Amino acid sequence: MSRKPMASRQPATYKDSGVDYDAMDAFKRLAQRAASQTAGNIARLGLKDVPASRGESAYLIEAADHYLAHVEEGLGTKNLVADGLPDQPELYANIAQDTVAMIVNDMITLGALPVSVAMHLAAGSSEWFEDQARLKALVEGWQRACNLARCVWGGGETPTLKGVVEPGAVVLSGSAIGVIAPKGRRIKGDIQSGDAIVLLASSGVHANGLTLARQIAAKAGPDAKLSDGRRFSEALLDPTHIYVPVVEGVLAAGVDIHYAVNITGHGWRKLMRATEPFVYTIESVSPPQPVFAFIQKHGPIDDAEMYGNYNMGAGFALYVAAADVETVVKAAAASDIKAWPAGHIEKRGTTKQVVIKPKNLTYDGSTLAVR
Amino acid sequence: MSRKPMASRQPATYKDSGVDYDAMDAFKRLAQRAASQTAGNIARLGLKDVPASRGESAYLIEAADHYLAHVEEGLGTKNLVADGLPDQPELYANIAQDTVAMIVNDMITLGALPVSVAMHLAAGSSEWFEDQARLKALVEGWQRACNLARCVWGGGETPTLKGVVEPGAVVLSGSAIGVIAPKGRRIKGDIQSGDAIVLLASSGVHANGLTLARQIAAKAGPDAKLSDGRRFSEALLDPTHIYVPVVEGVLAAGVDIHYAVNITGHGWRKLMRATEPFVYTIESVSPPQPVFAFIQKHGPIDDAEMYGNYNMGAGFALYVAAADVETVVKAAAASDIKAWPAGHIEKRGTTKQVVIKPKNLTYDGSTLAVR
Repeated sequence: MSRKPMASRQPATYKDSGVDYDAMDAFKRLAQRAASQTAGNIARLGLKDVPASRGESAYLIEAADHYLAHVEEGLGTKNLVADGLPDQPELYANIAQDTVAMIVNDMITLGALPVSVAMHLAAGSSEWFEDQARLKALVEGWQRACNLARCVWGGGETPTLKGVVEPGAVVLSGSAIGVIAPKGRRIKGDIQSGDAIVLLASSGVHANGLTLARQIAAKAGPDAKLSDGRRFSEALLDPTHIYVPVVEGVLAAGVDIHYAVNITGHGWRKLMRATEPFVYTIESVSPPQPVFAFIQKHGPIDDAEMYGNYNMGAGFALYVAAADVETVVKAAAASDIKAWPAGHIEKRGTTKQVVIKPKNLTYDGSTLAVR
Repeated sequence: MSRKPMASRQPATYKDSGVDYDAMDAFKRLAQRAASQTAGNIARLGLKDVPASRGESAYLIEAADHYLAHVEEGLGTKNLVADGLPDQPELYANIAQDTVAMIVNDMITLGALPVSVAMHLAAGSSEWFEDQARLKALVEGWQRACNLARCVWGGGETPTLKGVVEPGAVVLSGSAIGVIAPKGRRIKGDIQSGDAIVLLASSGVHANGLTLARQIAAKAGPDAKLSDGRRFSEALLDPTHIYVPVVEGVLAAGVDIHYAVNITGHGWRKLMRATEPFVYTIESVSPPQPVFAFIQKHGPIDDAEMYGNYNMGAGFALYVAAADVETVVKAAAASDIKAWPAGHIEKRGTTKQVVIKPKNLTYDGSTLAVR
């Protein structure tokens, strides 16, 4: 199976949409090096930096009988979709849930359960705080998401930043504190050749790939309908699934999760997020929601770009021993999340690849420069 | 002494500059109520919400033998001052320190020491990541600030948000995890009538009141000089003091800190931040840095507006028993921060006031609606 290069020959590619990861990625590497040099500062508190967590989706600190976890994340530009539907301020509840989901779904990839989630909402003008229905939805959605994530809402900050944030817009982001206890529940990244890949269903696009989706929405018009009759822009706003109860259930069942992936900005390329090279073969995909078919058709965008940038119906992945697959599927069902045995992982020397057999797609490790 | 009402009769007031706290404050109260209702979610983890920390500068969670602390904070608009000096990209190191300082100086108000600080930097365009000198300064400044705050830099997130953040601008914010151990070091807010107020020197404006300061800078021109010969815009960018070593030193010396205030957005009105009514009398002010005299003269702005919105040379306050004042002053000196016994606190029924005797100013509790 030959590798299909990203961003070539397609009429619409993700880079064309104005998001260029290269410059940002250089900065991230510079920051990661500087950050790791601060590790010694907490020795006096009896705490230890966990270097293996650098570059993962959550940062870990080791205490005597538990780990602390720290996540800082943001929503991206998804709120602009809701801003395009001002007659439906209640949709901001979903925007709030998306933001919390971005944070807590990162945190659980290392086995940490979120304890406290805080909101940062930066508005371009104080008029933004005058739409009472939107504020109410935002607050209710954030609270609902914290309940789904089984954590407390631990405060936040809501500045008005004239001249920094666009008038009428907001930047939504936030952070979480998490805990791993007992320490044995930590997901260490000890992937084994022969491991199974279990995929957990997404609710739709979640909060990634929205720049391109918004361009398509603008082209298609506000009343463009999906194959199931729903409006495209409304379907974009289906709230992101929160996978905390699934991971908590799997860990509580005693399953050793070898690795977990929150499938976000780089789509299914994220499946090869671990540093060590493996070949990740997907044998079974679930039919993606109609919202993806709409994006693909109206781009038009080929399968390689779609699976390389969108979650395509799978929002989270767990890598476990084959014997544990059934327990994972059951734990997910108990949280009303569909899960399916999707494939397997193999060691093939230094080859790092994601192979999606039903779609005849292969992504090489070089297409995922930063983690 | 009669109360001088805020925002009346002055040629320039803080509200005139475009920052209206009222609409935001209503949202904050709505959010605080919803947040407190999530408290029960962490009981299964053996953790407890600390209701008394709601509305304080850090949020606390009680564990068996320690408290966890969570802070989410942002820089505000100070980075726009640095953006106005593109030939001095190295000043972004100070901007980074300001952001970390905003976070960790909030955290220590409850006695928590920061363990991990994470960065959130949202840019309006990916071109922002192309100025290598600025990026280098930003990374070095964040690292330096984490070292000053004696914590680790625990990762972060750097999205590009076209259409949300202004082109060429960034939103800088972040979060911290902190720990109070042993639990007795928690600053509980048990202010006693007769307590002393110790003020810790600021380094300049820190990161508050910048909207108005930038308007004055625009009016005065880029080469406007202070009384000490420095350029106004450069003086605005003196990095915020980080008070972590002072508070850690005071706690390590066994002093029971009754309350602590990070003097930020509401200036010296913040001194009456505690819920319980007291009269806070300042007998001794330190001469503010020349940067404040420049703002005051060029506004023009009267003393009531200046002390009610700027730190005026005092960035942090500690309330302790009179017998502990000397220990606090010594601990501050050990961290190269000037501290002075500035006044005292008294119970006068339900009266809540800040009285600045040397300036003949009185602020009533009603002028600080939100904490």
